[in-house]
Parts: sequence; C-alpha cells; structure tokens
Amino acid sequence: MVDLLDALRAALPAEAVLTDPDLLSGHSRDEADLCAAGLPAVVVRPRTTEQVAAVVKIAAEHRVPLVPQGARTGLAGAANAVDGAVVLSTVAMDRILEVDPVNRIAVLQPGVVNAALAAEVAKHGLRYPPDPGSWESSMIGGNVATNAGGMCCVKYGVTTEYVFGLEVVLASGEVLRTGRRTAKGVAGYDLTRLFVGSEGTLGVITEITVGLRPAAGESLTLVALFPSTAAAGDAVAAISAQGLSPSLLELLDQTHLIALEAYQPMGLRTEAKALLLAASDTGSQAAADLERIAALCEEAGADEVYAATDSIEAAQLLQARRLAHPAMEKYAAEMFPQGNGGLIIDDVAVPRSALAALLDGVEKIAAENGVAIGVVGHAGDGNMHPNIVVDRADPASVADSQRAFDDIVELALALGGTCTGEHGVGLLKRRWLAREIGPVSLRVQQAIKAALDPEGLLNPGKVL
Amino acid sequence: MVDLLDALRAALPAEAVLTDPDLLSGHSRDEADLCAAGLPAVVVRPRTTEQVAAVVKIAAEHRVPLVPQGARTGLAGAANAVDGAVVLSTVAMDRILEVDPVNRIAVLQPGVVNAALAAEVAKHGLRYPPDPGSWESSMIGGNVATNAGGMCCVKYGVTTEYVFGLEVVLASGEVLRTGRRTAKGVAGYDLTRLFVGSEGTLGVITEITVGLRPAAGESLTLVALFPSTAAAGDAVAAISAQGLSPSLLELLDQTHLIALEAYQPMGLRTEAKALLLAASDTGSQAAADLERIAALCEEAGADEVYAATDSIEAAQLLQARRLAHPAMEKYAAEMFPQGNGGLIIDDVAVPRSALAALLDGVEKIAAENGVAIGVVGHAGDGNMHPNIVVDRADPASVADSQRAFDDIVELALALGGTCTGEHGVGLLKRRWLAREIGPVSLRVQQAIKAALDPEGLLNPGKVL
Repeated sequence: MVDLLDALRAALPAEAVLTDPDLLSGHSRDEADLCAAGLPAVVVRPRTTEQVAAVVKIAAEHRVPLVPQGARTGLAGAANAVDGAVVLSTVAMDRILEVDPVNRIAVLQPGVVNAALAAEVAKHGLRYPPDPGSWESSMIGGNVATNAGGMCCVKYGVTTEYVFGLEVVLASGEVLRTGRRTAKGVAGYDLTRLFVGSEGTLGVITEITVGLRPAAGESLTLVALFPSTAAAGDAVAAISAQGLSPSLLELLDQTHLIALEAYQPMGLRTEAKALLLAASDTGSQAAADLERIAALCEEAGADEVYAATDSIEAAQLLQARRLAHPAMEKYAAEMFPQGNGGLIIDDVAVPRSALAALLDGVEKIAAENGVAIGVVGHAGDGNMHPNIVVDRADPASVADSQRAFDDIVELALALGGTCTGEHGVGLLKRRWLAREIGPVSLRVQQAIKAALDPEGLLNPGKVL
Repeated sequence: MVDLLDALRAALPAEAVLTDPDLLSGHSRDEADLCAAGLPAVVVRPRTTEQVAAVVKIAAEHRVPLVPQGARTGLAGAANAVDGAVVLSTVAMDRILEVDPVNRIAVLQPGVVNAALAAEVAKHGLRYPPDPGSWESSMIGGNVATNAGGMCCVKYGVTTEYVFGLEVVLASGEVLRTGRRTAKGVAGYDLTRLFVGSEGTLGVITEITVGLRPAAGESLTLVALFPSTAAAGDAVAAISAQGLSPSLLELLDQTHLIALEAYQPMGLRTEAKALLLAASDTGSQAAADLERIAALCEEAGADEVYAATDSIEAAQLLQARRLAHPAMEKYAAEMFPQGNGGLIIDDVAVPRSALAALLDGVEKIAAENGVAIGVVGHAGDGNMHPNIVVDRADPASVADSQRAFDDIVELALALGGTCTGEHGVGLLKRRWLAREIGPVSLRVQQAIKAALDPEGLLNPGKVL
C-alpha cells in the first residue's frame, strides 16, 4: 500500500497537504478546555467535494482516523485531533455557490464564515438568523456540525431549523445528498437533521443548502437591572408565560458586568446582581412589547429598567453582550499570577421555569467549591453559560473547577434540563451524554453510528 | 409458542383486542388511493406505553408484522395493513398529559386529535401551529409520523419544527426517549427528527412533547382572482421575492372554484382561472402587508383583488379553502354515472420560483392524458395538490389518471422539487422516493431501518 502522505499528495494539489510540525500542532484542538487532543499526521485542505471524497477513501484504505475541522472555534473538543489522524480542514471550501432570493435559499461550501454569509445575503434583503458568539470567525460547516445556537435563537431557532439539505461524504467515500431545495418536503427519513449536530462523526459535510428569511426590521432594546440573578430568572419566566416573543433575551451576571466595565467602560451599573438585555423586532408593535417586558421585569423585582434611546445605544448594548466572553477571559487571566487564570466554559439549558433555580444553584455551587463563577447566556432559551474561573497553574484550583463544572451539569439535569444547550458533546460532555440520554438511546445512537461508519474512523471518540 | 391472539389477550384488557371481521376490514387502509391494503389478523387498542411495548414484543416473538395506525386520514397508504398483521391503533391513547405555559410545551399521547390539542392549549393563550387539512380528525401521532403540513406552515413551519421530544417503543420492545423539554438542546444525534416522518417504520410513538407558540393575533385576509394559474404562481414568487411573510397563501384553481360553488354557494367568481387567498397576522402591520401583497397580485395580472371586510368574512374564506377537498370529491363523484367518479390526490412541492411552471405543466398533462385535474394547495410553500378526476368503474380512466399522476411527479422532480411535500411516501410514492433520493441515500436509509428494525416487522413495505 502506498504511504498515506504519498497517496494524499497524489490526490490533492501540493498546497493542500500540510505536514509542517507547527501547522500540525496548530490543528490539534478547538477552543474547549479540559479536553484531550492529539497530534495529526497530516492536515489537508481540499477545495472540492471530489477532493474530500478522495481524502476520506485514502484515510479508510490506510485505516487512519479522519477528523473534520472548520474554524476550530468549538467549545466541546469535537474538532480535537487524535494522534496520527488525517485532519480535514474545510477552510479552503469557502465559496457561496448560490443565493436565490425568490426561494430564500443559499447553497454554500462548509468553509464559508457565518458573517460572510450574513453579509452576502443582506445584499438581497435577506438574513441567515443563527448567530453563534463566534459568528465573525466560525464557519457554517462547523455551525451545522454542532447545530450552533446564538442570541437570535430565542425567537428564530437554531441552525437545524435553517438547513434544508446537505451534501455529505460518507465514511465509504460515497457522496450522499440529503434534503431538498423546496420550502417543504417529506420524502424519506430526515437524514439532513441526523447529520446536523453529529459533530463530524457520521460524515464530512461538503455542501449546505440553507433557508433564509427576510431581513429583520429595526429592533428596540431595553436593559433591566436586578438585585439577584434569581429575580432576573423570574422575569424571564414571566415574559414567556405572558406570551411575549422577544427577539433577544440575554442575561449577564454581576461578575460579567464587572469584567465588562474593566475591559471597556460603558457605564454599566456593576452593583447590580444581574442584567437582562431584551429586544423586540416586531416593527410598530415593538414599543408596546418592550413596555410589557419592562413591566414584567419591574414586577419580578428589577431596580431599574431603561430603554436604549436610539439604534446606536442599542448596538452598543448588543456589543457589550458580545464582548462579555473576551472581557471575562481577561478578568479571569488577571485574577491569578502570571496571567494563569482561565475560564472553564459550561453550557447547560433548563426549562425557562427552572432558570431562577439554576442561577441560585450555581451561586451555591461556586460557594461550596470555593471558585468564582460568572454566568452569562441566552436567558430566553434557558441556555446558560456558567464560566468558572480557574488558576491553570494550580492543580487544586483545576480540581475545584472541574467539580463545580460537574455539579452544574448535575443540577441542570436534575432541573429537567440538558447537559448541552448549544456547544455540543464533543469530548467535554461525552460522559454526561450517556447519563442524560440513558442506555437505550445510547445503543440506538451507537447503532446508527455503526451503520454509517462501520470502521469507526470518522472523528473517533467524540460524542458517543 | 402461545397463539398470537392468546398472547395479546393475556397482555391487554379484553376490550383492547379486536377480531370482529368488520372491524378488521375497517382497519385495512387509510384514505390513499391506488394503494394495496391487506387484512390484519387483529387490531389492538392499547392505552399505555407498557401495553404498546407488550404488543410489539408479542408481534416480534410471533414474527408477525406490526402496523401502527392513528386516525387513518393519511393519503399515502402508510397506515395500510398487510395481511395477517397486528394493527396497533393509537385511538385509545388520547390523553393530554401536560400543558406547561411557561415553557410553552405540551406532553401528549399519540391519539390526541389535532383539534383537541388546539382547543386545550388555546385555554392558555397558546397555539400548536401545524394544521393539516384533516386537523379536526387526525391525531398528533399520525401528524408526527408523517411530518404533516398544513395552511399555516408557510409562516410557521411543519410538524417537525414543533416536536421537542418523543417516547418510542422500538422494534425490540424497549422504550426509547428522545429529545428534551428545553427550548434548545444538542445532546447527541437528533433522534427526534429521525422518527418524525418515518411513517411507523422505525418504532411506535407513544408520547410526544410539542413546542407551543403564543396565540396568533387576528389576521387580515385578501382574495385575488387571476386570469391564469401561472399568473397566480408569478404573484406567489413576487410576494416571496419582496420579503413578505404572509401567514396564509393558498391557491384554488377554477375547477375547485366551480366545485365549491356547487357544494356550498359563496359567490366565488367561477370564471377566474385561479384564486389566491392570503392573510397576514402581523398585528398593526397586517394592513400594510396586505396592501403590498395586493399590489404584487395586480402586477402579476390579477383581475380583481378584494380584502375581507371583517373577521367573519375572513373566516368564511378560510372555511371555503377547507371545504375545497370535500367539494372536489363530490364534484368528481357526480361527473360519472352511479357516483363512480373519484379523486386521485397528488402532492408535490417545487421551489416557489417554479410554481407557475408547475401549474402550466399540470394543465398540459391534463390535456395530454385526457383527464380533468383540479389544483389546490399551499402556494406559498410551492406545495400543490393536483386532484385528478377518475372514473373508478372504467379501467381506461384509471390508467389515464395514473399516467397523469406520474407525469406530475416527474414534472415536479424536473423542476427541482420533491415527490411529496407533506403527504408522505407510504406505498403511494415509494417508487418515486427511490428515484428522487438516489441509490446512495436509499442505502443509507435502509441501513438505518436495518439498524433499528433488523427483522423488518415494523410497517413493512412502506417508505423504502
């Protein structure tokens, strides 16, 4: 058998086969913490479906694991390499193949950056709603592979709602087409949604047909400050119970407010225990919607509620929410000597009615484990990201953080929630997945994996 | 081995095991035409998941096929019995187990009638959007098994968008739980959506967790009359291209207008070649939306556009649309002696941009095959139901109709469409499914079926 590298070099252009040691180690992991990662034997950057199929076949012939990677912005280790693997990077598959405004669809390669798609479809008065935090760098292929969420999902749903069809290279190297270009269609099993969120374990996505929506109208935005995180949680439950559908409903806790003010002073009131950011994009009804949301926040105990005076202030508030993560990372880094502080990012979702209980519980977990935890997230979906501050240089701190992380997931499950609202399972939540879904579901998922990838070479060790 | 009937009688209450010959033949088929049907050996009506599991295990032990049935309102033969099968009817599993207004979910057994769910959640100011034509009698279990559509889907999406989680009895008799109760969740493969639309071939759905929405505001409605069906198709494409999102966008052709006026005179102008019914439920913006839709209809060539003067007239128009099917059935019956006239109902979806071409093509197909075809459907989704009039007593007429049916599906595929927009594959579209999805997808679907039902006893012969 020809050597793996020779075979890849024969099948791909020279610049598509990378073996430089720095590049290899640079492709060993995504942005997840606490996850193992290996060193790939080679990184390939195909441009076409045919090249992807060739790579998958070569890896199969050599019985070498194949790990698909997009922008490596994932937070669960799903894109981490295993030792000796072929890493298939989709960065060079970055073409938007079609935008069809009448049928409101776009067809694209997986390496298209989310923000690039947003910009392109905006030219046609259209919008691709899913907006993960990483949207300026993450790629649609990775968004699809992880079924990414984001801030607009509270009203517009997550990635899977927008995937009409896929082209996938299977473990066999065969090219599968799923789904449709029509608004509706029920021909056969919904393979599209099976691949969405499968984190590279069932095939390599090489083309995506997404549904688009008309661009949203301008939205109105308000901020509410609360004397406790639980009061903010109560406000979210009340907003939902009253039948309101805000286009944004985000929470930042005091730790994040302090981190944000330190990172980029905006005059946020850091003595508040929690901030809710809400928006409505219902046009002429938005002002009335926000008035009702404001009243419900006050009833839930908000100290202060104020509306953004104009779209500039609204954009600033949204930007503050988007900066919460880098601000918190800087805050954590500076909490320990030599900048060794870091964040362990958790991701759980609970029924909205349990949001207050989750937030209360996270406070207790922080105290019990002697760690600082800042909470931020998509309150309207019950999807929270508790960020645990850790001193990476101190094994005791790492152990405390890991314990707090597990306690949070345990609590979310006890509240009827899930171990991952939007980041995915990858390596980080594998153990928890088995616990959440139970042995019957695990066996069914394993049977599907075995049916599609009998040799187990596609992204081995992830999810299941 | 104990006799099949003895085993079922030992496992279920006496009234849940039916062997009366009239009842058996009454459970042999759904409402599809052109489909084979067999005579079941027994019909069971379990009330609980445990009873369903017992039935599935008994059928497996006796190697007898098991066919799940809901209200048998399906239009693709997916619920048709095979000779000697156990028919598992879900009619007695009719409990709404929970309505949770804060989390906007309901949990129900599969035998709950769509309209009963709608009425129950309305008490909480909530709404379950999917509204298939059969909503007053069809059951949510069947809606889920076929991924049913309806009129509101143009804005609100089809059944699968509203299914958060399922309980399913697998071919092994094991009970699987899929999905979640939270607004978001990405823990593992999306088994929920794999079972939605799988038409009883992968398991028996015993419990469904659905997502709900706030009740829609009152909608405004307009009617536009066109001198050709293609002009109506052009109007639909223009409405989509202009970024409008009507809450209803339905088409009736002249044949249906004539049938409706004969069935229940409403003063519809039967000289029009096509009628579009459009609505907007965007509250204070609805009037402006309808004005734009009216203008686009006029630009596309509408002779006449008029708005419903009030909610009563709007409801009457909606009711006329809902009566289109029974009216057309009566019209067809009376076209031939002894009431032998019938309808062969087709169901295709094309990209909206191809709607005019589809409508033109159906006219040609009718002429070429010497049959009458009335077209009605969800124009905003490109999902049309060409209804072919047939003289059931005349083999030549049946053959002509069958040819026209095939020509329509062929045309829809050639236009980039699908062989079924919402009715499903069942027996009726099996051959077309293989053609539409191709050999690779068919093999993947068969591999999944084999992984979940290795003995092939669940609803054999359907879909794949």
